[in-house]
Amino acid sequence: MAAVEFWYEFASTYSYPAAMRIEALAAPRGVKVVWRPFLLGPLFAQAGWRDSPFNLYPAKGRYMWRDVERICASLGLAFARPSPFPQNSLLAARVAVSLDDEIRPEFSRRVYLAEFAEGKAIARAAIAGVLDGLGLDAEARLAAAEDAANKQKLKAEVERAAALGLFGAPTLVAEDGEIFWGNDRLEQGLDWAIGKR
Amino acid sequence: MAAVEFWYEFASTYSYPAAMRIEALAAPRGVKVVWRPFLLGPLFAQAGWRDSPFNLYPAKGRYMWRDVERICASLGLAFARPSPFPQNSLLAARVAVSLDDEIRPEFSRRVYLAEFAEGKAIARAAIAGVLDGLGLDAEARLAAAEDAANKQKLKAEVERAAALGLFGAPTLVAEDGEIFWGNDRLEQGLDWAIGKR
Repeated sequence: MAAVEFWYEFASTYSYPAAMRIEALAAPRGVKVVWRPFLLGPLFAQAGWRDSPFNLYPAKGRYMWRDVERICASLGLAFARPSPFPQNSLLAARVAVSLDDEIRPEFSRRVYLAEFAEGKAIARAAIAGVLDGLGLDAEARLAAAEDAANKQKLKAEVERAAALGLFGAPTLVAEDGEIFWGNDRLEQGLDWAIGKR
Repeated sequence: MAAVEFWYEFASTYSYPAAMRIEALAAPRGVKVVWRPFLLGPLFAQAGWRDSPFNLYPAKGRYMWRDVERICASLGLAFARPSPFPQNSLLAARVAVSLDDEIRPEFSRRVYLAEFAEGKAIARAAIAGVLDGLGLDAEARLAAAEDAANKQKLKAEVERAAALGLFGAPTLVAEDGEIFWGNDRLEQGLDWAIGKR
């Protein structure tokens, strides 16, 4: 079965529609999606950015908000701006990497919905609420996420993202190393995974 | 008849496939394309960039070259990297704004083909060659392009691009002011122009 890695960042606006629609695009193609949460902050810092480029470059930011609004409207997805933007996504990412493969996608979608459909901060309370809603023991899961070994696991994921040449999110990585950046490249990346070029 | 403004930059890689395919996308929708060459350099300078972001941010640059190569392959377009990149596009832009609306699109496509299909520098000799190929008086056209009034015309276009909120190329601007950035937004922008949302 062909597989693609789906690299996403919880603070990333375009990762939200991508996370919501990728499984529906992958299923008819018979492609397995490997969900890989990571952090863009360290990669942006290497580029000299201490904030989201959407804040650093206001024209780009204005366009992005309108563009994501249009994308969500076309998908029938609610959309709200969390404040501040970008949200600190460290805890969400740590929890996501700590979870089993089976639960990570649904946890991730629910975090995105809290953040970008409801406009909520993805701080401890919201993450605990998502874990509760999934029938998980929130306190135990948060403790596991903040365990030193798990923190290191997320760090290694960020290092792997940098080594793969990633610079934004969402990004698909095919088994042959081809990368496809952006919500609007999901179809192309999934087609690539099954040899449709 | 609905119209869209097609804002493009001769040094921009993604503007090349966009210029080559936009009329074929616009015709069946009954949309008139208004070709508006401009310069990104002054806008990038305002953002603090003294070079193409694809050079300033190497991971982004590596991805762009591969992405444009894939796009051109899928469209059956030849693709070659001009050296240096980005090319100085000032003369091409000045000539393009000086030409009549009827000839500007074909002039622009031929410049893109010289630059990104053949990998040639778009300096004076190449521009003169394109003008010759169109049956125009190259020397007279180049002189007209470098006339003070025409230089001012291009400057005004760049100012208008900034006022519209443009930050990259290619960009479509609909009559209601909606903007659509990128070669992969042409279909969406043209659909928007005819009320298909």
